Amino acid sequence: MSILVPAERLLGIARALIEAVDTPADMANDVAESLVEGNLCGHDSHGVMRLPQYVRLAREGKVRTTVRPVLDAPRRPGLAMRRVEGGWGWGQPAARLATRAAIDVAGQCGVGVIAIDHCNHVGRLGEYVAMIAEAGMIGFAMCNAGPIVAPFGGKARLFGTNPVAFAFPRPNGKLPVLVDFATAGVAEGKVRVALAKGVSVPPGNLLDKDGAPTTLPKDLYDGGALLAMGLHKGSGLSVAVELLGGGLSGLGPSVVPGFTQGFLAGNGTVIQAYHIEDFTPREQYLDRVEAFCEIVLASPPAAGSSEVLLPGDPEWRSRAQRGKDGVPLPEATWAEIIETGREVGVTI
Amino acid sequence: MSILVPAERLLGIARALIEAVDTPADMANDVAESLVEGNLCGHDSHGVMRLPQYVRLAREGKVRTTVRPVLDAPRRPGLAMRRVEGGWGWGQPAARLATRAAIDVAGQCGVGVIAIDHCNHVGRLGEYVAMIAEAGMIGFAMCNAGPIVAPFGGKARLFGTNPVAFAFPRPNGKLPVLVDFATAGVAEGKVRVALAKGVSVPPGNLLDKDGAPTTLPKDLYDGGALLAMGLHKGSGLSVAVELLGGGLSGLGPSVVPGFTQGFLAGNGTVIQAYHIEDFTPREQYLDRVEAFCEIVLASPPAAGSSEVLLPGDPEWRSRAQRGKDGVPLPEATWAEIIETGREVGVTI
Repeated sequence: MSILVPAERLLGIARALIEAVDTPADMANDVAESLVEGNLCGHDSHGVMRLPQYVRLAREGKVRTTVRPVLDAPRRPGLAMRRVEGGWGWGQPAARLATRAAIDVAGQCGVGVIAIDHCNHVGRLGEYVAMIAEAGMIGFAMCNAGPIVAPFGGKARLFGTNPVAFAFPRPNGKLPVLVDFATAGVAEGKVRVALAKGVSVPPGNLLDKDGAPTTLPKDLYDGGALLAMGLHKGSGLSVAVELLGGGLSGLGPSVVPGFTQGFLAGNGTVIQAYHIEDFTPREQYLDRVEAFCEIVLASPPAAGSSEVLLPGDPEWRSRAQRGKDGVPLPEATWAEIIETGREVGVTI
Repeated sequence: MSILVPAERLLGIARALIEAVDTPADMANDVAESLVEGNLCGHDSHGVMRLPQYVRLAREGKVRTTVRPVLDAPRRPGLAMRRVEGGWGWGQPAARLATRAAIDVAGQCGVGVIAIDHCNHVGRLGEYVAMIAEAGMIGFAMCNAGPIVAPFGGKARLFGTNPVAFAFPRPNGKLPVLVDFATAGVAEGKVRVALAKGVSVPPGNLLDKDGAPTTLPKDLYDGGALLAMGLHKGSGLSVAVELLGGGLSGLGPSVVPGFTQGFLAGNGTVIQAYHIEDFTPREQYLDRVEAFCEIVLASPPAAGSSEVLLPGDPEWRSRAQRGKDGVPLPEATWAEIIETGREVGVTI
C-alpha cells in the first residue's frame, strides 16, 4: 500500500525535519530539494525515505548540521581544480557548492575539477551533473561510499556502490542526456526492497557469505556482498571510483581505515565540468548531440522491447508524472517520517 | 597452431612495414611499439594482427602516413585543455603527443584535458593512461569508434565499442593499477576469433538482425549488433563516450554522418591527467592506494575463483611472460604479415 504526497508538501516536511536538527534554513533547503528531486526522478532510494536515517545521524552528531562547506582558495595561481572542505556537514550543500565551482572554474579554464573532502552523503549524483548541463556544459561526477561490493573473483566487501554520472546539454531547452548509475549491479536499497517484498534479485548481482552466487536478498545481510555490474569491467570501474573519487577527495578508498571517521556515510566525491566551446564549436556540438538523440530515439527496438530511450528519459518522465500526480510513498515510509517528526517536535 | 615470435623481432617487422608506407621513422616506431605492447599485454586484438589492415589502409590513402600531429596553442591564456590536430595521420603518434601534453598541462593546472581531432585508430587506450601513471599522475581516457553496439532496448548499431581507461600510480616502482575496458560486452575482435574457431560467445553479448539474443558469432556479421556490458548502465556509459570523447574531440558521435570522412577508423579521443598533489598530500595518497591494493590482493576468492587480482595485473603478468617467451601468433596471422611484407617490398 502506498499513498501519494504532493512534491511541494514533501519538500516542506523535509525542510522542517532537517531544520529541526539545527540546520540553517538554506542548507536544509538544499538537503530537502535533493531528496524530493530523488523521488520525483523515480529514485526512491535517494528520496525522503532517507529522512529518518538523516535525522537520527544528525542527532547522534554524525552530521555536523551547522557546518557550512567552504570552497578553498586555489593553492597556487592558474589551477583548474579546487577543493571543497565539507567539514562533515551535510553532503548536499557541499556538492552544490562544488558544482557551482566546477561551472565557474570550467568557464575560466576550459575544465574545472572539484574534490570534496570530509563529505557526508551527497545523495543522487545525477542532480549535480544535470546542474552542469543546465549551465550549458558537460558534467561528470563520481563518488565512493562504504564497502559492500565484492571485487571481481572475490567475495569480501571491498568497494562502495560507487556511482558515476555524466550529463550533456541539448539545444532548444530540452532536458539533458543524463547518465547516472551505480557500478554495483543493483543498489543496496533495491535489495532491501526485495527483502521486504519477499522477492528475489536478478541473478549475477549477489554473493552469499561463502562467495557463491545467490538471488536471495537475505544472503546479503547474512555476510554476503553485492557484485559489480558487467563482471570485471564494472569491478574495474568501481576500483577507479575508489582511487579517483575516493583518492582525490582526501577520504581515501572506503575499505582503508580512516574513511568515514564515524560520520554519516562518507562520499569521496569529485565533480567535473567541461566548457564545450573551448574544445569545439558550440553550435556544431549541440547539432550533433541532437542528431545523435534523434537517431537513438527513432531506432528500432530489440525483441521484447517496445521503445529505445535516451539515458535520463526515465528520470524526466517520472519527474513529469510525479510532479503532476504526487510522489507515491509506501505507508511504512510515511509512518516513519511522521514518527521522526514527532521525535524532533515537527507535526506532519 | 601458433608460433612464438620474440617481441624485439615483432617490433622490427612492424616498424619496417609501417615505414614502407612512407611513414617517418619516429612515427613508425610509435605505431610499432603500440601494437607490440598490445600483444605483450595479452590484447592480441590490438596487436600486430592489425598490420595487414594498417598497411592496406595506408596504401589506399585512408591514413595520411606523412602527416604529423600538431598540439594547438591554447586558444586563450589560462586554459587547462589543449587540442591535438591529428590530420588523419596515424592515431598512435597523435595519442602519444596528447598524453605528453596532458601530463604537462596537469603539472601546471592540476588537471589537463586533451582532445584529438581528425584522429585515426589510437590502439589500446591502456597504453596512454599507463604513461600518465608512470609520470606519477592519474590517467583517464576514452574514445568512441565506428558504430557496432546496440543501445539498451534497441537493435541497431549506434555506438562504438567505446573503451574507457584509467590508471593510478603505485609507490616503490610498482606497475600501475590499470583499468581498461570496452563498454561493449565483448570486443568485435573476440567475436571474430570465436567465428574462426567455431565456438559460441557467452550469452548477453550479441543480438541477431531481428534484435533477438544470440550466442552465434555469425549472427553479428549477418546484420546483428553487439550489446553493451552491464545492460542499461554500460549502454549509458557508451553514450557518455560518444558525447564526451566523440563530441569534444570534434569527430562527433560515430553514428552521426561525417564521423570518419572515409579515413581509417576514427577514434574521437579525450585524454586527461590529474596532478595528485594539487588535490591531496601525495605520500598519503600513495600509501592509501597501496593499502587498498594489499587489501584487495589478500581478500578471499569467491566460489570458483582461485585468486583476486587488481585491474591491470593480467596485462602485467602477460607482459612479463611474453617478454620472456615471445608473443604467440596464429600461423594465419604470421602468414598474412609475411604476405603484407611482400606487397610493400619488406622481407620478413
